[in-house]
Amino acid sequence: MQNALVGRKVLVTQAGDFMGPVLCEVFAEQGAQVLRSEARLTDPGAAEALVAQAGAIDILVANLSIVAPSTRAVDVDEAEWRQVFAALVDPLPRLVRSAVPGMVARGGGKILVMGSASALRGMKRASSYSAARGAQLAYVQAVGVELAPQNVQVNAIAQNFVDNPTYFPAEVQADPRFQARLAREVPLGRLVGAREDALFAAYLCSSAADCFVGQVFPVCGGWVAR
Amino acid sequence: MQNALVGRKVLVTQAGDFMGPVLCEVFAEQGAQVLRSEARLTDPGAAEALVAQAGAIDILVANLSIVAPSTRAVDVDEAEWRQVFAALVDPLPRLVRSAVPGMVARGGGKILVMGSASALRGMKRASSYSAARGAQLAYVQAVGVELAPQNVQVNAIAQNFVDNPTYFPAEVQADPRFQARLAREVPLGRLVGAREDALFAAYLCSSAADCFVGQVFPVCGGWVAR
Amino acid sequence: MQNALVGRKVLVTQAGDFMGPVLCEVFAEQGAQVLRSEARLTDPGAAEALVAQAGAIDILVANLSIVAPSTRAVDVDEAEWRQVFAALVDPLPRLVRSAVPGMVARGGGKILVMGSASALRGMKRASSYSAARGAQLAYVQAVGVELAPQNVQVNAIAQNFVDNPTYFPAEVQADPRFQARLAREVPLGRLVGAREDALFAAYLCSSAADCFVGQVFPVCGGWVAR
Amino acid sequence: MQNALVGRKVLVTQAGDFMGPVLCEVFAEQGAQVLRSEARLTDPGAAEALVAQAGAIDILVANLSIVAPSTRAVDVDEAEWRQVFAALVDPLPRLVRSAVPGMVARGGGKILVMGSASALRGMKRASSYSAARGAQLAYVQAVGVELAPQNVQVNAIAQNFVDNPTYFPAEVQADPRFQARLAREVPLGRLVGAREDALFAAYLCSSAADCFVGQVFPVCGGWVAR
Repeated sequence: MQNALVGRKVLVTQAGDFMGPVLCEVFAEQGAQVLRSEARLTDPGAAEALVAQAGAIDILVANLSIVAPSTRAVDVDEAEWRQVFAALVDPLPRLVRSAVPGMVARGGGKILVMGSASALRGMKRASSYSAARGAQLAYVQAVGVELAPQNVQVNAIAQNFVDNPTYFPAEVQADPRFQARLAREVPLGRLVGAREDALFAAYLCSSAADCFVGQVFPVCGGWVAR
Repeated sequence: MQNALVGRKVLVTQAGDFMGPVLCEVFAEQGAQVLRSEARLTDPGAAEALVAQAGAIDILVANLSIVAPSTRAVDVDEAEWRQVFAALVDPLPRLVRSAVPGMVARGGGKILVMGSASALRGMKRASSYSAARGAQLAYVQAVGVELAPQNVQVNAIAQNFVDNPTYFPAEVQADPRFQARLAREVPLGRLVGAREDALFAAYLCSSAADCFVGQVFPVCGGWVAR
Repeated sequence: MQNALVGRKVLVTQAGDFMGPVLCEVFAEQGAQVLRSEARLTDPGAAEALVAQAGAIDILVANLSIVAPSTRAVDVDEAEWRQVFAALVDPLPRLVRSAVPGMVARGGGKILVMGSASALRGMKRASSYSAARGAQLAYVQAVGVELAPQNVQVNAIAQNFVDNPTYFPAEVQADPRFQARLAREVPLGRLVGAREDALFAAYLCSSAADCFVGQVFPVCGGWVAR
Repeated sequence: MQNALVGRKVLVTQAGDFMGPVLCEVFAEQGAQVLRSEARLTDPGAAEALVAQAGAIDILVANLSIVAPSTRAVDVDEAEWRQVFAALVDPLPRLVRSAVPGMVARGGGKILVMGSASALRGMKRASSYSAARGAQLAYVQAVGVELAPQNVQVNAIAQNFVDNPTYFPAEVQADPRFQARLAREVPLGRLVGAREDALFAAYLCSSAADCFVGQVFPVCGGWVAR
């Protein structure tokens, strides 16, 4: 893939976290003008301010992340629940209502949510995180169907077992038990590379992918099949 | 199905709304002792208080509902988003942390979430509602997997096009355009009956269904296939 | 569940194999008149002859099985492929064209296919078997949608890790490596009981389940979530 | 996307039908050396002969098609069933056993099956076709998991409502009732373009997509969400 995003202005949120750094790198390589925002968007008003400041964008990559709690379901408290949803879920409608009217006025646009396959297959000690990720995917499906007639394509990647410093830091990857788990649970037998994930994101944000609306794409080495 | 729930004590939340009335009726017919709570569980502390008051229960039916907003995605504001999640999502971890320790101590239990297929297939003007329903289903998948070893089965019904006064009041059903939509979009060609849905819920809460964990069951007349 | 099938005449195919014995037992307990056919339906004409002989039936349980080959994909030959499809797939349209006209003439009926979750999640050395099981499920979805308006409900169970002598004989269950695999891969932590599966099948064949059409129900201890 | 397939030798089956012509065009544009075979692979031995003749290939695109019958389920006869499976299903294991050993010997390879979303969502009067397409997808999931450790990636596109002369000839597209159906049933509101589909296929066959194994990608304008 080369030059897939020439002439496109892309806003990447939380660009220092999760898939942010590699997304910015790969999108820039593909010719996009990349606006990197390292702000966390937890506070009301933050997403709106960011979009206003960004100006006319063609593509919004909603890369939202938080360190995933590993609390037992019976121990999840109000604070954890609020924090996880404030970080992963609440920014989405704010981003959409801020960014979409401009996209529509300019003839179209794209929104890609960097979501998680934890919403597609249950995992232990991940209830708050999975729930928030599930909200993201269902939101994308609904908004994607709604905005399709206005030439705004909204889709999501549902990833897991993708190399990134937020969820799979070096010390985790170095742990032989983790490597054994990869071999056992992930058909691919390795982590998905960060660049593989980012290239797929770039593809989904290119005009080649105008045909996808409200769709969820697992990127997880076969951990879920669709 | 007869006497599927004899000797079981069941707590049904929001028993006056959504599937509440018919769930109480059918569960009682099946021999259960039914605790009907008509309280809305939006406020922090409400779910915990309800479970404390209910005492030792075998089965919890998380029947949460709200009148579904039909706001366009770009018009969804903070208030709507907060309200929808406060009603449909936030009570779930409170119910789980209140009810599960007792179930575990008594040797097991069941939780059934009355969810929505709107989380499985996108619909226009339903973004806040679908997102919240998506959080429910992903939460159930995660908690279901986690609690399975403790003999607590957590599952969800993902319904749509089920006869109930909250979402399909008489005036909607009387509208010929709605009937045309049913014929066109729902393979079953009619609304699922309220009792059909409640009987399936009763089955899933009976000991016959001990084998289901973290599973989502669509009940929507074929609107989604699984 | 009691007396769910009183007055119903049920034909169970391959009644000596796979889930056949327990299905016959449980359906009879639920009040059904059960016609047990032990014939394998591989040969053209066999399914048609069986249905003709059975006469007026209300419910058809398509319980088709074969010892699952564990051939590597590159070693699957014509004979294996033909055999697996002849046993699991080819009988379905024969059963449908033989049984459905009578059901329609009598006002309705039900067909339940005892399928496999191997069609929903990939497994190694199971390519021919999984492919045939995939044909079954997609067939059920299509025919279920088509026959719904005629009051014939066609659905499938997609099972795996259900106790049965065909796929999990005693010697497999006794193997500690198999028990370890169960603990690791199946959230339920045990095989689904044969009666649990058969009771669910009975439920789906009862009038309570008239609302399900063209639907696939995983019964696999959480191995797939839906 | 540019030059995604430089240096790759690709075999496209049934290159004159279904997605064949546009796949050959787009893969060649992306730098691949494309072997076009117009042969139908129905007869045993045909697939094997084709692969033998093709020599060392990096990528196999299994583009199999047949004019989809629109027979009612009760009228599907042996001939139709046999024909549909002979065209769409039976060639797959022959292609795999012929092509994969060479790929493995050369260090890896890719197989992409051009499948159908009719296997994911039921449609009327499409039972034989849907069943065969279901066999394809389940086969891909199983073989994809099995071959992943050998660096052979096997995936499928599950398409519907993609512009192609086999399933949506000009006269169908010109029919206002078809256009109304598109508007009503397909969130995208139009057919997916042939080149959009082929570009996605090219992406999945490029080295950027080495991370996908045994996965099914819907390409159907949102007709199914995943």
